[in-house]
Amino acid sequence: MARFFMAGTNLLGGPTAIIRGRDAEHIQVLRIRPGEDVTICDTEGKDYKCRLVRADKEEAELEVVEVVPCKGEPSVSVTVLCGLPKGDRVDYIIQKSVEAGAHDIVFFRSARSIARPDDPYKKLERWNRISEEAAKQSGRGIIPKVNWAEDFGEVLNIAVRTDLPLFMYETGEREALKDVLEANTGILSAAVITGPEGGFEPFETDLARISGAHVCSMGDRILRCETAPVIAVSALMYATGNLS
Amino acid sequence: MARFFMAGTNLLGGPTAIIRGRDAEHIQVLRIRPGEDVTICDTEGKDYKCRLVRADKEEAELEVVEVVPCKGEPSVSVTVLCGLPKGDRVDYIIQKSVEAGAHDIVFFRSARSIARPDDPYKKLERWNRISEEAAKQSGRGIIPKVNWAEDFGEVLNIAVRTDLPLFMYETGEREALKDVLEANTGILSAAVITGPEGGFEPFETDLARISGAHVCSMGDRILRCETAPVIAVSALMYATGNLS
Repeated sequence: MARFFMAGTNLLGGPTAIIRGRDAEHIQVLRIRPGEDVTICDTEGKDYKCRLVRADKEEAELEVVEVVPCKGEPSVSVTVLCGLPKGDRVDYIIQKSVEAGAHDIVFFRSARSIARPDDPYKKLERWNRISEEAAKQSGRGIIPKVNWAEDFGEVLNIAVRTDLPLFMYETGEREALKDVLEANTGILSAAVITGPEGGFEPFETDLARISGAHVCSMGDRILRCETAPVIAVSALMYATGNLS
Repeated sequence: MARFFMAGTNLLGGPTAIIRGRDAEHIQVLRIRPGEDVTICDTEGKDYKCRLVRADKEEAELEVVEVVPCKGEPSVSVTVLCGLPKGDRVDYIIQKSVEAGAHDIVFFRSARSIARPDDPYKKLERWNRISEEAAKQSGRGIIPKVNWAEDFGEVLNIAVRTDLPLFMYETGEREALKDVLEANTGILSAAVITGPEGGFEPFETDLARISGAHVCSMGDRILRCETAPVIAVSALMYATGNLS
């Protein structure tokens, strides 16, 4: 079923919803006919099951049939924090993390980041559009926000405010991810910190540990920087019963 | 450390290993110097830790320092079986499944496959090269084979010969993946069957169920056809203790 996100204000609590702009055009493109079903998500976790009344290029009118909690939202809110990788790996991390169930995604320049964008804030619009597309396609109840963190201190600060800050590291003394997740059941939030192409510097790992993050291993295979966050989120979703 | 795969015959059991051809050239390109370390994997799960003795464009001679089991191999052998998707999604499935720890990958044309290659066997060489590259990069001890299955009957036959055949389906009556994995500990092999862009037809699901596969749910988010196998393999690796 076609699925749209809509600002809450367009749903006045009454039985009618109005869609304008790009999404109204999209309804035309998809050739949805009056009487057919459309889901509108309020991006705060609620789905409005609607029936199309009329549509033209500018505007679509829908009748709200029922309001239900969006099933696509996991019970645990996972923040993904990634050392900025090169090129389209960023796009990939956003798309797959959203599919896997991440709540929000934060990029930052870590010591070994090769990519050096002049103005990362300029990229946020595009990055958030990738998130929106992925959220629509995978039936999410929110549009995960993509943000930029100015430095590693801010990253750790975001992570340690969650119930379970996890720092993924490929060598040295680490806890097994599975042990950490099994010792921390009932969490409502978590953070997953992963590095860029070259991984993290030892001093970054030390800082993470001192801040209270669990320095974790995900096994003996070397994961690409764009794969690690997706596998970590999947493991978190699995362990918290959100993959079934 | 640089890592190469080598046919077993070049390692004569003695202290010397010889690398020829593309890999010898690669050693030149990487500017590895005599005295530096190189790992040669026999693709059967053993790593030969070597020291470079001499190298030119045609040939490299190495001294075998020790032979150790490759740590990158999971304890469970997972076969990934995918309804053929379009274009570079195939490449993506191969690369990420190998990273995640799959033992082998099989593509097949399912009822809703849009891609209709004239001769899929011609593509196998390229697909296996993608697997080899991913295996090298992620430190695998084998090169996962990529194969083509002629029909859905063959797919089910491959799957039910494993300890735990899993059929991923997005609707209807299903078991939660987590319940299935928790009820089947100690497995040595498993199969993950996923669909192409449009998913599976109900008759395919019925056939899978009758054959003895577990028809499984991976939660309420809709996963893209190229994401589902990677998340399923990750969950399997996590559950069997191979992600820590």
